[in-house]
Amino acid sequence: MSTNMRAIRISAIAFPGMNALDMVGPLEVLARIPQSSISIVWKDKVPIRDMRGMTITPDSTFDETSVDDVLVVPGGSGQETLMNDEIVLEFIGRCARRARYTLSVCTGALLCGAAGLLQGRRATTHWSAFHLLGYFGAIPVNRRVVVDGRHVSAAGVTAGIDGALHLTSLLTDAQTAQVIELGMEYAPAPPFGSGSLATAAPEIVNAARQSVQPITHARLATARRIATRLGITRY
Amino acid sequence: MSTNMRAIRISAIAFPGMNALDMVGPLEVLARIPQSSISIVWKDKVPIRDMRGMTITPDSTFDETSVDDVLVVPGGSGQETLMNDEIVLEFIGRCARRARYTLSVCTGALLCGAAGLLQGRRATTHWSAFHLLGYFGAIPVNRRVVVDGRHVSAAGVTAGIDGALHLTSLLTDAQTAQVIELGMEYAPAPPFGSGSLATAAPEIVNAARQSVQPITHARLATARRIATRLGITRY
Repeated sequence: MSTNMRAIRISAIAFPGMNALDMVGPLEVLARIPQSSISIVWKDKVPIRDMRGMTITPDSTFDETSVDDVLVVPGGSGQETLMNDEIVLEFIGRCARRARYTLSVCTGALLCGAAGLLQGRRATTHWSAFHLLGYFGAIPVNRRVVVDGRHVSAAGVTAGIDGALHLTSLLTDAQTAQVIELGMEYAPAPPFGSGSLATAAPEIVNAARQSVQPITHARLATARRIATRLGITRY
Repeated sequence: MSTNMRAIRISAIAFPGMNALDMVGPLEVLARIPQSSISIVWKDKVPIRDMRGMTITPDSTFDETSVDDVLVVPGGSGQETLMNDEIVLEFIGRCARRARYTLSVCTGALLCGAAGLLQGRRATTHWSAFHLLGYFGAIPVNRRVVVDGRHVSAAGVTAGIDGALHLTSLLTDAQTAQVIELGMEYAPAPPFGSGSLATAAPEIVNAARQSVQPITHARLATARRIATRLGITRY
């Protein structure tokens, strides 16, 4: 039985205030793997509102979920309120130890960091949180997708699609991933070329930084507390 | 009051069997426009399952919805079953006449075509349905995003993000769109470069074509019927 004939089960954590695209992008990629199945998990099955107001309903609870293959951890502003939530962090830690791969998207990396998964691992996250990775013991790597063993991390929001395509090739083979890339017509053409700190004009960077300043401050304070808890002293 | 200070209301149609990414990608872009609001509309507010099994709940019904600014029409395999649904087509037609812009994503273009919106208009859609555009009286343009007056069409699935960024610059200004592109870290790096028919290897194109063959056949038969209904004789 070849690798890509085996059923692959993918679970994604959903949570209030998540960024839906962080989750839907990767799930659209991974659900296209032949014989894969996806599920959306949370503490309960009550509908969740994402940070844009979209209503998504989990189909599985933490207690019902045993992740064998892939755990997807999205980000979004709601991530910050989960950083001390032991139920969530315990679930992420338990699944990640068992899963073949964990894929963090955007500030989902901070949740993985709080769960202790990033210690000594190379990882990336959204540019606005990149400077926080060290507080979780991670080795920050300024790339769109970083694979370190069983942890795959993707940078901000849209990078989850790239991360999931990389992961698809690890789970199956390059041909399967290429067919999916074509099926999703993923030949992107960003109209402005301002999608990274390196390419955006200074006034665009300033405006984008200002818009995330309050949550970035909150995330820094949280990261410091977690560093203490994890016993991490060098960041 | 400058254009981008005015509240911009965005409505997206959701439907059973839709492709969630077709909708969530553009909504993530458009919801970042300052003072914008988004809503997800359908015949009723019963939870919908997309073609991958994700559960999304509409927050508004057709009867409650008056689209002043933007109507987003996603695609996905469920689009095919709506091509003769007069309630859906009437809603799309009514909103599109009133809205400043309609954005079709992927095979959402076929729904817009069935609603009579594409007659004489340049448009694009997912590569697997591109040859069907003429049946709706559209002028097929092989680009990722096509703007023709008040109709913006995006090619397959992921192209909705590009389309929505273009649309953002039409609704506001280039600076606003650039800040959003950076906020979403949209500096994509497709790992395989197989995202279009022009760049994918022949065996990848064949495999991708085969996977959509049944629905493409069904869509062709439907497009022919609709061409007759619309009185279109040249395709």
